Amino acid sequence: MADRIFSSPPVAVNLGLESFHRSLLDQGIASMHVDWRPPSPAAALLTQLDGDAIDRANAEAVRRLVDSEPVLVDIRPACEVVPGLEEGVILHAGPPVTWERMSGPQRGAVIGALLYEKLAESPEEAEKLAASGAIRFDPCHHHRAVGPMAGVLSRSMWVFVVQNRTLRNEAYCSLNEGLGKVLRFGAYSPDVIEKLRFMERVLAPALAEAVRRSGGINVRNLTAQALQMGDECHNRNVAATSLLLKELVPHLLAADLDKPTIAEVFRFISGNVHFYLNLSMAACKAASDTILGFPGSTLLSAMARNGTDIGIRIAGLGERWFTAPAGMPEGLFFAGFTQEDANPDLGDSTVSEVAGIGGFAMATAPAIVQFVGGAPADAVRHTREMYEICVARHPHYKIPVLDFAGTPVGVDIRKIVSSGITPVINTGIAHRKPGVGQVGAGLLHAPMAMFEEALAAFVEDQKRIEHNHGSPVGV
Amino acid sequence: MADRIFSSPPVAVNLGLESFHRSLLDQGIASMHVDWRPPSPAAALLTQLDGDAIDRANAEAVRRLVDSEPVLVDIRPACEVVPGLEEGVILHAGPPVTWERMSGPQRGAVIGALLYEKLAESPEEAEKLAASGAIRFDPCHHHRAVGPMAGVLSRSMWVFVVQNRTLRNEAYCSLNEGLGKVLRFGAYSPDVIEKLRFMERVLAPALAEAVRRSGGINVRNLTAQALQMGDECHNRNVAATSLLLKELVPHLLAADLDKPTIAEVFRFISGNVHFYLNLSMAACKAASDTILGFPGSTLLSAMARNGTDIGIRIAGLGERWFTAPAGMPEGLFFAGFTQEDANPDLGDSTVSEVAGIGGFAMATAPAIVQFVGGAPADAVRHTREMYEICVARHPHYKIPVLDFAGTPVGVDIRKIVSSGITPVINTGIAHRKPGVGQVGAGLLHAPMAMFEEALAAFVEDQKRIEHNHGSPVGV
Repeated sequence: MADRIFSSPPVAVNLGLESFHRSLLDQGIASMHVDWRPPSPAAALLTQLDGDAIDRANAEAVRRLVDSEPVLVDIRPACEVVPGLEEGVILHAGPPVTWERMSGPQRGAVIGALLYEKLAESPEEAEKLAASGAIRFDPCHHHRAVGPMAGVLSRSMWVFVVQNRTLRNEAYCSLNEGLGKVLRFGAYSPDVIEKLRFMERVLAPALAEAVRRSGGINVRNLTAQALQMGDECHNRNVAATSLLLKELVPHLLAADLDKPTIAEVFRFISGNVHFYLNLSMAACKAASDTILGFPGSTLLSAMARNGTDIGIRIAGLGERWFTAPAGMPEGLFFAGFTQEDANPDLGDSTVSEVAGIGGFAMATAPAIVQFVGGAPADAVRHTREMYEICVARHPHYKIPVLDFAGTPVGVDIRKIVSSGITPVINTGIAHRKPGVGQVGAGLLHAPMAMFEEALAAFVEDQKRIEHNHGSPVGV
Repeated sequence: MADRIFSSPPVAVNLGLESFHRSLLDQGIASMHVDWRPPSPAAALLTQLDGDAIDRANAEAVRRLVDSEPVLVDIRPACEVVPGLEEGVILHAGPPVTWERMSGPQRGAVIGALLYEKLAESPEEAEKLAASGAIRFDPCHHHRAVGPMAGVLSRSMWVFVVQNRTLRNEAYCSLNEGLGKVLRFGAYSPDVIEKLRFMERVLAPALAEAVRRSGGINVRNLTAQALQMGDECHNRNVAATSLLLKELVPHLLAADLDKPTIAEVFRFISGNVHFYLNLSMAACKAASDTILGFPGSTLLSAMARNGTDIGIRIAGLGERWFTAPAGMPEGLFFAGFTQEDANPDLGDSTVSEVAGIGGFAMATAPAIVQFVGGAPADAVRHTREMYEICVARHPHYKIPVLDFAGTPVGVDIRKIVSSGITPVINTGIAHRKPGVGQVGAGLLHAPMAMFEEALAAFVEDQKRIEHNHGSPVGV
């Protein structure tokens, strides 16, 4: 028997951390890796919940989310439409954060916004003002808005106005500035500000006219098509941007605009393969806001990062944030930059994953690995893994390569805690210092701690409700 | 022993025709299918050739093909640029065919072209003229041109002028009319003719101005991008058409055209997801013409169908056609039509497969199965199979889902004969009667007989060369 065991070289079987497996392979030792993670200790909490009642609540909640039909109906100055964006208020991505704790790129974007709004005349003056307490910082998410990366939104910036045709709620997002040295990645040099002024003066008003003439552009349809065309609509928006342009051009031509202006607007959008991202984010916000405060549901209603913290909201727990330190994306860096330069994870763009696209739809976008790293098979693997933590498949967003299965949607924190799998996120990477800009793009998983904390709070909340009223959900 | 054999139910192992396997499964009988085809009896001919010399010739030939860089440089009336398109000449798709043997849809398109050219005043008159011998019919392929489906090209139609930047050869193709009731599918009603006149009067001249202003649009680049966006650029051209529009719009806006004209042109193209096909075909013709007559090469230089016959040309055998009866595509039919209505396989669009895209690149386009039938896994399978009969991978056309492998390119008739695998073709399906139009889209494999005949002729030709001059290739 021993003879037979040792007649061939041993093969290691590795459970858990894949890095052990890889280092065996690197040393030329045969190893098989079993993809398994221990459940979180918090999984024990699940026994304290009425699973059936929560399943019912989640099923109803996810239906609201996927039945949402976000339509771009207008483009307007933020101060005219975003509720509570008063003078002296600056919105930012992620959960709440003070100036003192704010990450480099978010500080850079705030400096830029103060210069752009002519509230300061120099970066130094802007920094002083930001630190003085005279400016109120508030998350975009608290104002029906979202913002990519730093996510800084100020009164004079124009926003996409996206209306959910199903429930009539609205959501907003600024217009995408392009890649590289731009405000949302923390840059604030004069050319950055000048571009924002061009967007305010020329781009946004022209697009607004086109959008109003169109009678509304159905963003859900555009996203559904783009997912058949190799986009996952978070970090790859090539097809979606083309499709959006195709919708806009006839209305730009019909509007009271001269040809050079139309050409300028067209060139701005066609030169930026990520232009669609911000529109998609507003659409995802309009969809995911429909479950904000949905009673008894353990689904994620928001996930966002400010470069210091990552925060989540749970449908049944309303507006409360659960936070953890923002993670560090691994990915591909632009020439001249390395992982050393990277700021921790940043931006509201994870609203994409909450709504069932982005990292969750990566199987539709094998070519994205050239931007975020990895191999095409990883893209499919990420999507398959996300089915484990979701309660539904999106009826409108289909993945051709998985036999047109719907994308995983409706992230259930119970499944996260019991499987040990957290949401995968596709993201841009900002330089950690203010003023520099984008340095790369990559991938990461959200940290487990905040999901555990949220689940514990959910259990507490259910107990409290039960105690006060006799609960339909607690046991 | 017998006990052990019969202790579990038998499982059939099926080699060869998959239908036997499927019918066992239908009857609830366990069956495994082995994907295997017997080599053609003509494979014996291969021993009579100097394989190494042919390999060298093919390697050089395929390099010419894939190094081609087709660029759209102009759009012009066919009579001004297509060589030999004199008065009284009508070009058509596929190998040569007489009016008597011409398929219904090709006859329909000829009738339409004669009405359009005002050579006849009624369909009856046109038919009489076509049958009179006063019109000379000639394949597009003999005039540096290609045409989809019926592929009928007459003097007043405008054509894309595609120049191969590498070898300076040119190729031409008409502009795509859209789907449904159109000339290329054999329709010739007044609205079909009216649309052709609009294309001649408004569309083509406007686009021509834009193309000239652009300084040339690189078709190879557009195709390479579209393959990353879910197109295979034969039967799925959604992304490519969007990308082409993105290139054209700034130049349309800069041209001396009024906004309503630009809007009309834009709407025509954006309303037709196949607009790119004809441009792509001209580009594939420009690439594949570089190996027409390439000495000692067994690669396909052309494959085309006229709805009666399918024909191929072999690089080393110059302009000679080898033909077989055109096959019958299986696929999906538009509402109200069935397989009964289908005309046999039709069109020059198989120039796509000869140049390494279309059916050969299906793995890039899993969503296409909604148009041509089958499951997404079939799309990958078709591409994998085509590697078996090709001598190279395209250095510019990459397939994300196969780890960015190049598409199979350079179809070697030796490999076809020895493997029993013939090229897969994605195609539109025309109604078999003149005047109706498109009824569906589907897939088929080219018939083996013509490849066998071509190989026999190649062997003969090599022997003849050896006899006359002492040959570098024959043995």
